[in-house]
Amino acid sequence: MAEYKAPLDDIRFVLNNVFNVGQFWQSLAGIEEVDTDTADAILEEAAKICEQVLAPLNREGDEEGSHWNDGVVTAPKGFKEAYQTYCEGGWGGLGGNPEYGGMGMPKTLVSAVEEMVQGSCISFGLAPMLTAGACLAMNAHAADELKDAYLEKMYSGQWAGAMDLTEPHCGTDLGLIRTKATPNGDGSYALTGTKIFITWGEHDMAENIIHFVLAKLPDAPPGSKGISLFLVPKFLPDAEGNVGDRNPMSCGSIEKKMGIKASATCVMNFDGAKGWLVGEANKGLACMFTMMNYERLAVGIQGMGVAENAYQGALAYAKERIQGRSPTGAKTPEKEADNLLVHPDVRRMLLTMKALNEGGRAFYTYVASWLDIAKFSDVEKEKAHAENMVALLTPISKAFLTDAALQTAVLGQQVLGGHGFIREWGQEQHVRDIRITQIYEGTNGVQAMDLIGRKTVMAKGELLKLFVDDVDAFLSEKASGLNSELVLTPLKTALADLQESTDVVLQQSADDACAPGAAAVDYLDMFGYVAYAYMWAKILSALPDAEVSDSFKAGKEATGLFFFAKLLPQVKVLKARIAAGSATVMAMTEDQF
Amino acid sequence: MAEYKAPLDDIRFVLNNVFNVGQFWQSLAGIEEVDTDTADAILEEAAKICEQVLAPLNREGDEEGSHWNDGVVTAPKGFKEAYQTYCEGGWGGLGGNPEYGGMGMPKTLVSAVEEMVQGSCISFGLAPMLTAGACLAMNAHAADELKDAYLEKMYSGQWAGAMDLTEPHCGTDLGLIRTKATPNGDGSYALTGTKIFITWGEHDMAENIIHFVLAKLPDAPPGSKGISLFLVPKFLPDAEGNVGDRNPMSCGSIEKKMGIKASATCVMNFDGAKGWLVGEANKGLACMFTMMNYERLAVGIQGMGVAENAYQGALAYAKERIQGRSPTGAKTPEKEADNLLVHPDVRRMLLTMKALNEGGRAFYTYVASWLDIAKFSDVEKEKAHAENMVALLTPISKAFLTDAALQTAVLGQQVLGGHGFIREWGQEQHVRDIRITQIYEGTNGVQAMDLIGRKTVMAKGELLKLFVDDVDAFLSEKASGLNSELVLTPLKTALADLQESTDVVLQQSADDACAPGAAAVDYLDMFGYVAYAYMWAKILSALPDAEVSDSFKAGKEATGLFFFAKLLPQVKVLKARIAAGSATVMAMTEDQF
Repeated sequence: MAEYKAPLDDIRFVLNNVFNVGQFWQSLAGIEEVDTDTADAILEEAAKICEQVLAPLNREGDEEGSHWNDGVVTAPKGFKEAYQTYCEGGWGGLGGNPEYGGMGMPKTLVSAVEEMVQGSCISFGLAPMLTAGACLAMNAHAADELKDAYLEKMYSGQWAGAMDLTEPHCGTDLGLIRTKATPNGDGSYALTGTKIFITWGEHDMAENIIHFVLAKLPDAPPGSKGISLFLVPKFLPDAEGNVGDRNPMSCGSIEKKMGIKASATCVMNFDGAKGWLVGEANKGLACMFTMMNYERLAVGIQGMGVAENAYQGALAYAKERIQGRSPTGAKTPEKEADNLLVHPDVRRMLLTMKALNEGGRAFYTYVASWLDIAKFSDVEKEKAHAENMVALLTPISKAFLTDAALQTAVLGQQVLGGHGFIREWGQEQHVRDIRITQIYEGTNGVQAMDLIGRKTVMAKGELLKLFVDDVDAFLSEKASGLNSELVLTPLKTALADLQESTDVVLQQSADDACAPGAAAVDYLDMFGYVAYAYMWAKILSALPDAEVSDSFKAGKEATGLFFFAKLLPQVKVLKARIAAGSATVMAMTEDQF
Repeated sequence: MAEYKAPLDDIRFVLNNVFNVGQFWQSLAGIEEVDTDTADAILEEAAKICEQVLAPLNREGDEEGSHWNDGVVTAPKGFKEAYQTYCEGGWGGLGGNPEYGGMGMPKTLVSAVEEMVQGSCISFGLAPMLTAGACLAMNAHAADELKDAYLEKMYSGQWAGAMDLTEPHCGTDLGLIRTKATPNGDGSYALTGTKIFITWGEHDMAENIIHFVLAKLPDAPPGSKGISLFLVPKFLPDAEGNVGDRNPMSCGSIEKKMGIKASATCVMNFDGAKGWLVGEANKGLACMFTMMNYERLAVGIQGMGVAENAYQGALAYAKERIQGRSPTGAKTPEKEADNLLVHPDVRRMLLTMKALNEGGRAFYTYVASWLDIAKFSDVEKEKAHAENMVALLTPISKAFLTDAALQTAVLGQQVLGGHGFIREWGQEQHVRDIRITQIYEGTNGVQAMDLIGRKTVMAKGELLKLFVDDVDAFLSEKASGLNSELVLTPLKTALADLQESTDVVLQQSADDACAPGAAAVDYLDMFGYVAYAYMWAKILSALPDAEVSDSFKAGKEATGLFFFAKLLPQVKVLKARIAAGSATVMAMTEDQF
């Protein structure tokens, strides 16, 4: 089984050469003093903890799983100590608000750290990821007293966070939730109800767990307009702000599941637990949306991070394993056979993985750069523009990265043949772990509906124009060195196809309410391929001036050309599927299925 | 969790209406007396045992797994009893040679039974599947004494079979095997070596296990031309032919793996175990090929069978679960929400599953019909033609059905959202179980190499012509009722694309030894889509005269039109990928990955 190696070279290339972050950060108030040396030191330290502390937990944690015993949840061996190390390194507050002890680092940098954390051990990574999400919601919407009481302890990791949305009868359709919040008369509320699928909702790694719970006030309007957000701590803070009385809430059980087995997925029962409103009453969903852009990108990064791990495992095996001979004649005649890399089909698999992973790495950094502008820019127009880009790209970053990750992990298993199916090789775990990233934080179908509904049809295609303008600006400023036939023409054609398909969807939707839903996943997929094509063009254009090894350059160039020749053509079929409309999707009645 | 229901209606429709088996069987010597009533009774009995005996074992068996204890392997609870029931029903000999107690049923019928057995519990199904494979090899190649001693007991299931090919250092490249067979001087051999990945190589369900082992004779030529096949029983038959002395061979361990966990995947150690040559010395691989066509089709059927189970689970959930509202307005305003079937994207997923499963069912029956002609026809030319069709279609039946099965099972998990990831719902198990079907019995990449290498480039495209002729004959005889725009034109275009891509591959291969490998998987995939399009055209053309319910007819037609509109367009991108050749696949050197 290959050891996880943090992909620092490519991360540095993406940050420094593709996105020129040194200059980018300098242009933004609040992060203008982050320089690439600081960033590099942070990346190196993160790589160390990921390789040395987190990666070794990954397989053992999967085998052992979390334990539930009468409401007490114990993380697998080593997790508590790793959490301690992680917190002591200050990693929990890397992107956090400096007023409360956060380091205030840009998302462009934080994302790269997230890739390594999630890629080395996703089950562990979920704990800080959910805490960071909770901190975001709190920082944006909570009253100052709450922030003062909780935020610093959460950035430090002393207290962890959890997000409690789903209930047994509803996940996607949160308007149906039944958990109740009744005013106690002292400004606090009593919460009663059951939440399921609560990742790390209970564990022994931190001294307290702060839950962010969606619930309904007694007078709440029906549906999604009657949902409020509450902060509900496992232990109520005492007068000194330390851990005090246990709140009446408990973990009823943890799920047996396909993957991310080391993490506890909890059923949480609230029995009149004390909580405080975060943000306005009945505006809970809006509060959640603040963090959702970050969380959805984070899930995309998760998938991609694990997929990088899968690539490393497959590549190591392909180099080591000898089997058969090269079609052009023996490459290592002194051995019984050549290694797997001589076989074109094995190369196809590895190149597909590499092209998707490296395209994905550039893409998450691209989305993160818009998040940075949206957060740090002091030019209102720039900020609004960046917020629109974030809105458009977020569903793609969640769904396309994780779909690509599953494809990658399945290939990474296939390269190993029978050994890919055996647990000790580790490749099958990546498939099982990645699979959840396509489901949670809004299924990829829900992401596709968000993209095609709110962000495309409702926006009348205006958001897409911002993206197209961005590509056009790149093409006119930076693309002069790119091969016209192999890179520029395919990119331009794919972009034109995306625009055409967008028009088609807009037309279809005018008199067919089912058209967006029928096209949604194909449309998101198409956008994803076009976005990756743009990323690969950016990557290729950054190569000539980059101070990287010749081997790195040659590998990048070859991988990029593979992407344009072999993967991008998928756009054509997606266009045809979208054009086919909703008729065949909607024709059948229920009994005909 | 939905209960598995044997898809008898569709199986009957495929057999009776699409393939008109009554007439077909009558035309073939040896099975001319099998009528559709007999077949129907067999199918109903098989459905019963699958629904009532095997399906209930599926999830429990996955949770429990097989047990290894000091060389003794115990199948999960209930497996031994189910095996007994299965054997008493005579299912093991359904397609077997009547001279030795087999029932001699046609493959077209046996395949349908296999689908149900594998679909209800794949881990169990592997035991009779491997025994049937061993019987095939023995029936075709073993000396009469061996057949007399073993075959009847194996058809009855009293003795089970296992296939021992892979070794730790070689799987695909069997020329590298190291297991030795030394003549004992009495016509028997002593086998020494280690085999891995031996499915049900050891267990407690049958009183004896007969291993078919690939090994090398002392004077064997190097590589794949020096491999011989040996029969090596766990217990040597005594003078009366009953179980006698234990042969010196043992199960060293069983694997922990991603899926098919109830089945034991064994490391087998042979320590001078007594065996007998099957077929000629050094012709072991050729002997294996006899059964390989059957086994590879069987693996395709396995994948499809489990995918049918996944479809049933997803459909039941989609009907039951209420969440959100139809885009055209509430369908069940009296309830809090509509069921999932109102959502176009959920329909897309279910229709994709249904289209692939039902296309797959028709396709395996189609391949089985060629196996029947190859086996039973007494017209030499027909036989040879059928053998060519089998050779061409076998790799597609193995790889395309199992690739489609994974896609189907992943969708079947996605329909359930978070519940799809939880073990108790059963959907995630289907993904884990199906995954192995893409790997074993020759990885799907190896199948693709077989199709494009031996069956296409080496055959100079001649085999494809047989397939094209078959489609053309159908088009001129049976297709008059089909919609020209929605069915016939897409089918003809896709067929023409396949022919063009075949020519492209032949041209590329003339001066590029890497071209076939670089195109292999895309080419197989393309062929698969075209073959399914042909099947769907056959299905649609069989509908008008079929005595089936209106709902069945309408559902079939809608699913077929969905296939042509939404899935078949994939052919276009595969064509583009093939045209792109091997350059970008082969460009990178090893250090650039």
